[in-house]
Amino acid sequence: MIIIGERINTVRKSIASAVEKKDAAYIQEEAVKQVQAGADVLDVNVGSRLEDEPTNMEWAVKVIQEVADTPLCIDSPHPETIKAGFKACKNKRRAWANSITLEKGRIEGILPLTKEYQSLVVALCMDKNGIPGTVQGRVQVAKKIAEVVSRYGIPKGNLYLDALIEPVAIDSKKGILALDTIRELKTSLPEAKTIICLSAVSFGLPERRLLNRTFLPFLMEAGLDAIILDTVDRKLMTVLKATQVLLDKDENCLQYIAAFRAGELAEGR
Amino acid sequence: MIIIGERINTVRKSIASAVEKKDAAYIQEEAVKQVQAGADVLDVNVGSRLEDEPTNMEWAVKVIQEVADTPLCIDSPHPETIKAGFKACKNKRRAWANSITLEKGRIEGILPLTKEYQSLVVALCMDKNGIPGTVQGRVQVAKKIAEVVSRYGIPKGNLYLDALIEPVAIDSKKGILALDTIRELKTSLPEAKTIICLSAVSFGLPERRLLNRTFLPFLMEAGLDAIILDTVDRKLMTVLKATQVLLDKDENCLQYIAAFRAGELAEGR
Repeated sequence: MIIIGERINTVRKSIASAVEKKDAAYIQEEAVKQVQAGADVLDVNVGSRLEDEPTNMEWAVKVIQEVADTPLCIDSPHPETIKAGFKACKNKRRAWANSITLEKGRIEGILPLTKEYQSLVVALCMDKNGIPGTVQGRVQVAKKIAEVVSRYGIPKGNLYLDALIEPVAIDSKKGILALDTIRELKTSLPEAKTIICLSAVSFGLPERRLLNRTFLPFLMEAGLDAIILDTVDRKLMTVLKATQVLLDKDENCLQYIAAFRAGELAEGR
Repeated sequence: MIIIGERINTVRKSIASAVEKKDAAYIQEEAVKQVQAGADVLDVNVGSRLEDEPTNMEWAVKVIQEVADTPLCIDSPHPETIKAGFKACKNKRRAWANSITLEKGRIEGILPLTKEYQSLVVALCMDKNGIPGTVQGRVQVAKKIAEVVSRYGIPKGNLYLDALIEPVAIDSKKGILALDTIRELKTSLPEAKTIICLSAVSFGLPERRLLNRTFLPFLMEAGLDAIILDTVDRKLMTVLKATQVLLDKDENCLQYIAAFRAGELAEGR
């Protein structure tokens, strides 16, 4: 499972402020911290000020690349911002465009870029009517997106389908719905990959990190290919390592024991 | 899911010593602590000194019942000890005999008791050759046990089949095997119940509690009916409550929010 660090996002006030002030050191510190904690990819979202979003994205991508050569996940609903992020990316082929939906504007704005750079694209399983309320509804949208992606000549393996987690506080069946969607996507579209943004599941409830880290094992068992989460959340990362042991994804428990010896599994931290 | 507290077991040195010294207060404190932390049933295992096991069981059952009216799970491979425990039980119908296997001596020693008191019985899915290494092997043993139980006129709903967790440290596939066994038992023998003893999964590895609490959500999703665990492990119980929210088993998140308000979910404790 590919781990995408979520922290460079202007929904966080400290990040919004750093982007506003062009505080490169703060953004870079967040980048390094996430990579050290296990991020394979860094998500970058600077959507708090719409009018400046493309220039802010270009700036953020540049400053992050000064300290990390991790692939970047350029996160915006706006094709212009994603284009600006890609323009600044040193290694466009390893970059992610996050995201398209079945909406025409986003498809036509992003997919030519994905095709040109042979890069990766995240597609939310939703269309202009919003998020389908059923597994089958989401899978139908995903199939249409996969068709469009193929028409552009993009390999299905470069498509990451976001099964979409919604808060269980709003509807208690949303967690199960997301898990069933992942499983069904993997059956119906085996060549495409799956992705999810973990923390939405706990929105509106107290002790969100407890809920997030308890949901993670289910996502791993469902076969999720990539996940956006907070790698700096130490307890979350210990659950990830424990789950790898339990699901036979850590040969001879070597990674788990190495993490233990490095003091990374210790209680109470 | 029925929660069975595991702490009164002479594999723990402090319990062995308390049983040896007939320190009723210590045993009673352990009983009360577990019930307060959420145990529906208390397991009692005094097997450290074989020659005294039946009299020690009778003593332990008596002293526990002075402070807790929780049902007891009389835990021994020896029918004589289980009989001694049942003899002392005030409410035999709510008591559990833990356990039989497909071995004749244990069946003939225990099932007449289960029949007489209309009580509950735990059966390990193993025979005289040991624990089958496959799901199908365990389910076959379980079917034979269910037949025997039926022949004794015991309702299948009083039979708890132990799917048997073995340590992932010994074989990395043992966790998945246990989960698949639970699912298959529920399909093949829908009237019977399933049970498991959680902590065996982590034997031989460091940070065992991390592994135990990470395995719990999988067991709950597999539909496990009863579990033997340490209710005093606070982090484990928070995972249980979070999992109930995520799997739509906590209407309107009421139990979760109540636990939060009572301070039971707080981090770092």
